[in-house]
Amino acid sequence: MDFTSDNTASCAPEILAALAAANVGAAAAYGADAWTQRLDRAFSEVFEREARVFLVATGTAANAIALASAVPPWGAVLCHREAHIERDECGAPEFYAGGAKLILLDGAHAKIDAAGVEAALTQFSGDPHRVQPAAVSISQASERGVLYTPAEIAAIAAVTHGAGMALHMDGARFASAVAALGRTPAELSWRAGVDLLSFGATKNGAFGAEAIVAFDPRYGEAIARRRKRGGHLLSKSRYAAAQMLAYLEGGLWLKLAARANALALGLGEAARVHLSAPVQTNQVFIRPGAAALAKLRAAGARFYDWDRAGGDEGRLVVAWDQSEADVRAMGALLAAIG
Amino acid sequence: MDFTSDNTASCAPEILAALAAANVGAAAAYGADAWTQRLDRAFSEVFEREARVFLVATGTAANAIALASAVPPWGAVLCHREAHIERDECGAPEFYAGGAKLILLDGAHAKIDAAGVEAALTQFSGDPHRVQPAAVSISQASERGVLYTPAEIAAIAAVTHGAGMALHMDGARFASAVAALGRTPAELSWRAGVDLLSFGATKNGAFGAEAIVAFDPRYGEAIARRRKRGGHLLSKSRYAAAQMLAYLEGGLWLKLAARANALALGLGEAARVHLSAPVQTNQVFIRPGAAALAKLRAAGARFYDWDRAGGDEGRLVVAWDQSEADVRAMGALLAAIG
Amino acid sequence: MDFTSDNTASCAPEILAALAAANVGAAAAYGADAWTQRLDRAFSEVFEREARVFLVATGTAANAIALASAVPPWGAVLCHREAHIERDECGAPEFYAGGAKLILLDGAHAKIDAAGVEAALTQFSGDPHRVQPAAVSISQASERGVLYTPAEIAAIAAVTHGAGMALHMDGARFASAVAALGRTPAELSWRAGVDLLSFGATKNGAFGAEAIVAFDPRYGEAIARRRKRGGHLLSKSRYAAAQMLAYLEGGLWLKLAARANALALGLGEAARVHLSAPVQTNQVFIRPGAAALAKLRAAGARFYDWDRAGGDEGRLVVAWDQSEADVRAMGALLAAIG
Amino acid sequence: MDFTSDNTASCAPEILAALAAANVGAAAAYGADAWTQRLDRAFSEVFEREARVFLVATGTAANAIALASAVPPWGAVLCHREAHIERDECGAPEFYAGGAKLILLDGAHAKIDAAGVEAALTQFSGDPHRVQPAAVSISQASERGVLYTPAEIAAIAAVTHGAGMALHMDGARFASAVAALGRTPAELSWRAGVDLLSFGATKNGAFGAEAIVAFDPRYGEAIARRRKRGGHLLSKSRYAAAQMLAYLEGGLWLKLAARANALALGLGEAARVHLSAPVQTNQVFIRPGAAALAKLRAAGARFYDWDRAGGDEGRLVVAWDQSEADVRAMGALLAAIG
Repeated sequence: MDFTSDNTASCAPEILAALAAANVGAAAAYGADAWTQRLDRAFSEVFEREARVFLVATGTAANAIALASAVPPWGAVLCHREAHIERDECGAPEFYAGGAKLILLDGAHAKIDAAGVEAALTQFSGDPHRVQPAAVSISQASERGVLYTPAEIAAIAAVTHGAGMALHMDGARFASAVAALGRTPAELSWRAGVDLLSFGATKNGAFGAEAIVAFDPRYGEAIARRRKRGGHLLSKSRYAAAQMLAYLEGGLWLKLAARANALALGLGEAARVHLSAPVQTNQVFIRPGAAALAKLRAAGARFYDWDRAGGDEGRLVVAWDQSEADVRAMGALLAAIG
Repeated sequence: MDFTSDNTASCAPEILAALAAANVGAAAAYGADAWTQRLDRAFSEVFEREARVFLVATGTAANAIALASAVPPWGAVLCHREAHIERDECGAPEFYAGGAKLILLDGAHAKIDAAGVEAALTQFSGDPHRVQPAAVSISQASERGVLYTPAEIAAIAAVTHGAGMALHMDGARFASAVAALGRTPAELSWRAGVDLLSFGATKNGAFGAEAIVAFDPRYGEAIARRRKRGGHLLSKSRYAAAQMLAYLEGGLWLKLAARANALALGLGEAARVHLSAPVQTNQVFIRPGAAALAKLRAAGARFYDWDRAGGDEGRLVVAWDQSEADVRAMGALLAAIG
Repeated sequence: MDFTSDNTASCAPEILAALAAANVGAAAAYGADAWTQRLDRAFSEVFEREARVFLVATGTAANAIALASAVPPWGAVLCHREAHIERDECGAPEFYAGGAKLILLDGAHAKIDAAGVEAALTQFSGDPHRVQPAAVSISQASERGVLYTPAEIAAIAAVTHGAGMALHMDGARFASAVAALGRTPAELSWRAGVDLLSFGATKNGAFGAEAIVAFDPRYGEAIARRRKRGGHLLSKSRYAAAQMLAYLEGGLWLKLAARANALALGLGEAARVHLSAPVQTNQVFIRPGAAALAKLRAAGARFYDWDRAGGDEGRLVVAWDQSEADVRAMGALLAAIG
Repeated sequence: MDFTSDNTASCAPEILAALAAANVGAAAAYGADAWTQRLDRAFSEVFEREARVFLVATGTAANAIALASAVPPWGAVLCHREAHIERDECGAPEFYAGGAKLILLDGAHAKIDAAGVEAALTQFSGDPHRVQPAAVSISQASERGVLYTPAEIAAIAAVTHGAGMALHMDGARFASAVAALGRTPAELSWRAGVDLLSFGATKNGAFGAEAIVAFDPRYGEAIARRRKRGGHLLSKSRYAAAQMLAYLEGGLWLKLAARANALALGLGEAARVHLSAPVQTNQVFIRPGAAALAKLRAAGARFYDWDRAGGDEGRLVVAWDQSEADVRAMGALLAAIG
């Protein structure tokens, strides 16, 4: 019963098939191929707005390059203290942005809010000795699997844009959010004020396909250049593009995400009182105490500790391809720790 | 007849099969999977020496991260004026190395030599106002498809190491070199003094699989960290690793490269007097004049201009999957401009 | 009554005289002059240990270059949340260190302690996805004018070195600390475990003279190179060196600092119950409420608000050349707010 | 007889006097003082145009910060192969600009021309794999003491601006140029198309005072921020500003430069046939052969070798305070090698 991460999952057969289908004859290099050329339109349809799409190899690259396109070296990115860009990217945003700074905000379930952004801004206000806030970054779903509503995003966007900043969304699990909220991709992104979206497919069934979606064309030049300099302009771009097209086609991305969400919801019900965050997507956070965590592991469950200091919180991630048997067994274990 | 690049080629069926075979169940993320864990040993066997292997998404990333691990921000990399790291990576080495400098050397057929390195070094010698040479980078095969012999590499390595520098080899087409020279991978790398090798598979039959091979473990920490910060630590590393393992297995890499080399050799014979560089690998450089180039294109041949100033030189690249019909037709065209 | 900063102070006559005295004839450029050549010895005598000294133009440059010499781009500096390097240098450490991160610790009076460092370290422990702690930086005196005892420094140093990190001290007001504590420069630096010291003279009577003092020679090359690249290798270095020599000569630095400390102590006694930090050096922090601060200003006192969120805290800095009349008048005002 | 550099010179008594005069009482920190506040107007008068002036500690800082304000990390600076920014700044421009590249052009006497810029541009033209030319930098006077006429600058500016690039002038010896050409500062800078000027005073009589003059206000924010992050925002800015004001006042800068130019001209006449560059400012380049250079040194002359490979070229720099006796003696020596 492996619930360590959706990064351990396999790749969806539809995506493997698309890869194989793309493997025919020669195709122009560096994104001039037919698959990559279809991406902008495919995303524009899904998002109901013209957008520019830039493939990169990882979500870390998507986040760092997107942010660096909006943040000068003397800029700052406001984000949650537990954000992936702060905790799990070994300083990639600082590297790509030439030494910019992350300003850490608090908030329940790894979410920030408009008031928190506003409060943080008061410390800077043009001070020549301090970095200048230039972007806000939120994760949808959050690092604890919890969602921002369109209204919450819009409120953050209002403060963000009011201060001349850009709003970035880390959507490594954007599919989980769209599937869970029953709102359109547009409502959860640019209509709510998102300027730059890191759009992930890898955790949800691709081999390795991530994209930066720029809703404002002015970021295009910087993204394209930083992508090249970062070593993320793929020579055989067709294969990543084919994955992404298959991922979007016929709503595969939402089908896969919805399944994982539903299974996680079941686990959440089994875990009940031990939940340390509401289960809204494919992640289940529990804090039943260290002894109970040990017991779960002894019974064969695999998952990560979450609260890094304490050791008494665990995170269970349901992958798109998680077996129902696994989920049932895990549910039984959770119910038993009562 | 598309001879623009080996980046336009498809992926070898053996590699596609390996990818599909790896797509079974869960596997640990970020390189802790069984495939990635086998890489160090697989490369150590091929290179007859313990080596550490780091997968990255592109050859640009491999070059930039490898160099940055050996060159401080105030350092310099000596390379040929036409090197890929100088001309085709949009400043990736400078970016990863924090603003280091490339020092450009001349030499026939995009090769440098020991004397050229030695001469360049005399300009620096500890001057506190100048950057400090820290690495030499050579491309095997060179940007003009020409090869360094083990003795030539060893001579460069002697000067390089004598000055306390590291020797890097851009091996985007290392397979072509090994196949052509009939020397072992070891003889063409660490035995001749290479410290860091960018080992490419993408141009020669992979979807997208490149690696940094570090023959000296002291570079490991910096490479691992810079790879992560560059967004090149793949979450589902098994798929890139599976490609690389299939590429090496049973000598597939050399078989594919040898075929392309042989076909290119045939083209070279057809082009005879118009060759602007000896044909030693899978690239054919011709300088028959602008009119002749136009004629070739009118007859359906596709290839890039090479001599960027003049417009009278063309580069034909034979890919691993180039059809024999294409090569025959191209050969006939070349013979006809005679 | 200007108590805004010791940066507003004039320059000591002894230092002006030294500058004038150095202004005779030609002197070798870039630090090869006789004044700069005497610096290492002068500092080594003051610090009772061989040290290498690097002049730079500002304290920000001293801090950033010193830290960058000990911290790789993927490294982190642990410091107090209110540290100058975090709040007042517009990201200079991140810039010089190629995108490193500052990890913010809490602690009374802008001081951190060994336990705080130890607790922060537990979050990192080799995680490949996170930056790696590489240095600890403390300010002596702290940003609130409070001092670290040698024992406190040594305790921090033990944890710092135990984790393979370097200990940096921001000594923009090191003179104030030495004068106040009655301990030797050695006891407050390398004997307590400090590896790198930013040694300031500007706030305490120089025109503009700051130095990085490296007690460990292994940092020398990186400091020298980063100083040059940062544009801080002064062509006419003799003039900065002459200031620094005059500053140290005959204990001028301690005499000037002691005077300011003593006057501040008097202000602290006048402010009594309103002190928000103990007065140990030349800074007085008061929190008498916003109305009282306004009253002080109405009476002619000039000083900065400190607690940036609240607006109810003020900082009074006594400069080396503060007039006794000013201090008496200010003392009377403080006493009057009751 | 020390002719090694104008960096070895002393400081002009007028400037020392101004420093002493500024040393009275408190003055606002970080450039809010009365002296610094007068700078913009003082320069605007000298240059007959509104300009923003940013003091920094060195010419290297001025060049690097100015260029970084106009060049993105993926940009390139076109300059002469012997430019100070290429040879003598240890990669400072690459550091400040986040890994940009310098593209080296040739040209007699360390000058480039419009045709050279135009030719270099043809290699780039939007190629996504190459850095993008973003600025041209020329030195006035050149590294070999030779001058650009207003018409030459304007021709370069036309190509530069036509390609959307900025024109930077390294004016470490701008005073020498203005004094020699008999043209106004305006004619030699913005009227000829210069956007950013590094304006030096240190080599020509100041202790240490350099400035970036921005003729286009759009560069202001980037310069201010990069200056702060580089550690070049001086806390006691009044002292550098006072130097600069005294330097400009009453044309002192031109008087000092004119004297040195005139003396150098005399040396040039003495050296006659051995000149390796025309003597137009305060530098004299001779190539009388290695034996003759040795003879000059044996007779007491001190100067640097210039042609770094050969060792047969020498550079004599006449400082603003060079004694006439020295110049006479040197002239006699030069005449004697005839």
